[in-house]
Amino acid sequence: MGDTEFVIEPGRQDIVMIRGFDAPRDVVFQVVTDPELVPRWWGPRFLTTRVDRMEVRPGGRWRYVNVDSRGREYFFSGVYHAVVAPERIVRTWEFEGTPGEVALETVTLEAVDGGTRYVAQSVHPSVEARDAIVRADGPRGGRESMDRLAEVLAAGS
Amino acid sequence: MGDTEFVIEPGRQDIVMIRGFDAPRDVVFQVVTDPELVPRWWGPRFLTTRVDRMEVRPGGRWRYVNVDSRGREYFFSGVYHAVVAPERIVRTWEFEGTPGEVALETVTLEAVDGGTRYVAQSVHPSVEARDAIVRADGPRGGRESMDRLAEVLAAGS
Repeated sequence: MGDTEFVIEPGRQDIVMIRGFDAPRDVVFQVVTDPELVPRWWGPRFLTTRVDRMEVRPGGRWRYVNVDSRGREYFFSGVYHAVVAPERIVRTWEFEGTPGEVALETVTLEAVDGGTRYVAQSVHPSVEARDAIVRADGPRGGRESMDRLAEVLAAGS
Repeated sequence: MGDTEFVIEPGRQDIVMIRGFDAPRDVVFQVVTDPELVPRWWGPRFLTTRVDRMEVRPGGRWRYVNVDSRGREYFFSGVYHAVVAPERIVRTWEFEGTPGEVALETVTLEAVDGGTRYVAQSVHPSVEARDAIVRADGPRGGRESMDRLAEVLAAGS
């Protein structure tokens, strides 16, 4: 289903990432909300991911840890605002290395032609905070996550 | 401590509201996180406010109801991402009449000259969603809330 697209407009506070998957929407929803599967697709390939906590419900908390080859750990965490199967997940997230810079992520799954259009929008507290994430290669991590998610889906999860 | 200021820049996705209060920061923090006191200051004066739920901790949920003179109810709800006494509260919010349009609010309390500078930033999913709130007189509700909060603080809560 091709490549991952990004919409990152100058002066805006959000990043939109769009990807098509050859899998039905309910399967995509099930895979992305399964804590057991997150380590197989979330984050760039050169890091490993551990799920410390992932309570997929409004008010539930989540915390993922990225670990690099030297054993250094990078924590990401937040809370779920809304979980509407199989179409929408809204949660906050914060890289704990830059505390206080909280973003709001909305993942929308649309059923299209037997497949799924995955749209993830992250809204940031400022244009500067958003641009810092773009400079830190955030979109690369997103693109690799989407490629890895396609692999998990192709493997029948 | 004067009037409430707003920063609403064209093309941005956020609204910033700033107000000074003649009360120490820990008192302001205590008042704004007290469910018993919310009905005395939250929202415009022509509506009454009821607190259905207010769990002030990360992952806690909140829900307020505005009731008009004809008994119609308007629901607002979300989850707390961070609660850092006495300086910061980060929570999501959604007007249930426009489901899916979730905003992220960060309230920062700064100690200044024996008083407190209250800064509330709301970040919205789009410029359009933000502008709709501005057109719907959201800032008026915010300004009245700040005036009412000043009154609660002056009354020694």
